[in-house]
Amino acid sequence: MELDPAKLKYQDRYKLLIGLVTPRPIAFVSTCDAEGRPNLAPYSFFTAVGSNPMLLMFCPANKEDGSEKDSLRNAKPAGEGGVGEFVVNVASESFITQVAAAGEELAFGQSEFELTGLTPTPSSVVKPPRVLESPASFECRTVRIVRTNPGEAGGGNIVLGEVVRVHARDGLLNDRLHTDAGGLASVGRMGGASYCLTRDRFDLPRGKAALDLGGA
Amino acid sequence: MELDPAKLKYQDRYKLLIGLVTPRPIAFVSTCDAEGRPNLAPYSFFTAVGSNPMLLMFCPANKEDGSEKDSLRNAKPAGEGGVGEFVVNVASESFITQVAAAGEELAFGQSEFELTGLTPTPSSVVKPPRVLESPASFECRTVRIVRTNPGEAGGGNIVLGEVVRVHARDGLLNDRLHTDAGGLASVGRMGGASYCLTRDRFDLPRGKAALDLGGA
Repeated sequence: MELDPAKLKYQDRYKLLIGLVTPRPIAFVSTCDAEGRPNLAPYSFFTAVGSNPMLLMFCPANKEDGSEKDSLRNAKPAGEGGVGEFVVNVASESFITQVAAAGEELAFGQSEFELTGLTPTPSSVVKPPRVLESPASFECRTVRIVRTNPGEAGGGNIVLGEVVRVHARDGLLNDRLHTDAGGLASVGRMGGASYCLTRDRFDLPRGKAALDLGGA
Repeated sequence: MELDPAKLKYQDRYKLLIGLVTPRPIAFVSTCDAEGRPNLAPYSFFTAVGSNPMLLMFCPANKEDGSEKDSLRNAKPAGEGGVGEFVVNVASESFITQVAAAGEELAFGQSEFELTGLTPTPSSVVKPPRVLESPASFECRTVRIVRTNPGEAGGGNIVLGEVVRVHARDGLLNDRLHTDAGGLASVGRMGGASYCLTRDRFDLPRGKAALDLGGA
């Protein structure tokens, strides 16, 4: 089966992306506006970019009316009306219903912290609070925003941030900075309303040695 | 526990990213050089960006000597010595050992298709072949490359591509273009040498309705 995206509605292209690009990590992004009012929203168009400098990115798409989501309005530089900072909190099993709940569209300035009951706690070097319940958080400064279709519905925006602090719950990292995946209990995003757990893990060597293991 | 990335080696920052940003989808990227010689490599710094236009991105970091990986050399525009096209093939359980094997560094021009035994098959509108064994593939044209630290070890590069064709195995998509996640059997990338399956799935509504379900 072969599809030409040019012949599809953007909503159908979106369905293909969320169904086929899986499992996606969830950035539970906390921001605040210039008055300090906090916002919290999940984004699964999210990944790490590089380690030198240490960069993360998330993609808040334009809304149906072409306007920008609150996370983008808050994360953009001060010169553009934002505060130029955001926090990526890792989404974990124990509060995944609250993550889904924070996907609700609230009026600008209304807090998803209140809606979900999650706890804002001060960050070390950026203005937006981090989520106390999260096992790990990245404090980020926005270094660049790439807009792919400004003002249009479904247009993508890449918010690129440099990590200026990493928080990890005690015991989550060992002395070589390896993560305890069981302790993290991260959750992946699948298509539609679906999520996946990360409990069913296995190791593979890189390169030819993997082939010696035979088919998975 | 709190860490300042400025005080860590970039290799340690990398360990934090791959351990904490999970589960990551795997782009099994096929490219070719100007002579048509194919290359195949897995990238988990990968996500969808937007649906209008339909964009994907993957991030091939610079190598330890600061040089560019083959996938980047091939995907960059013709004016810069590449072919300006790439294919993202979805990594699936049935050939995950071959995906790991293709992570091996081969000399430029040597083919990971030969190493792994996977089957290159012609794409519809781009030069690089797609992977026949993959349940779904995205043919992409490079629209932009963002280099975050050119020439430096560990520097990140964002290769942004517009999807010009989507291939899906018969039966994978229903008539509303929803993906059968069980048929896709995608695999996520975790920290170190670890992967996760996506068989353990659950649904959550978006917004307040999720809270009515109680803690997960």
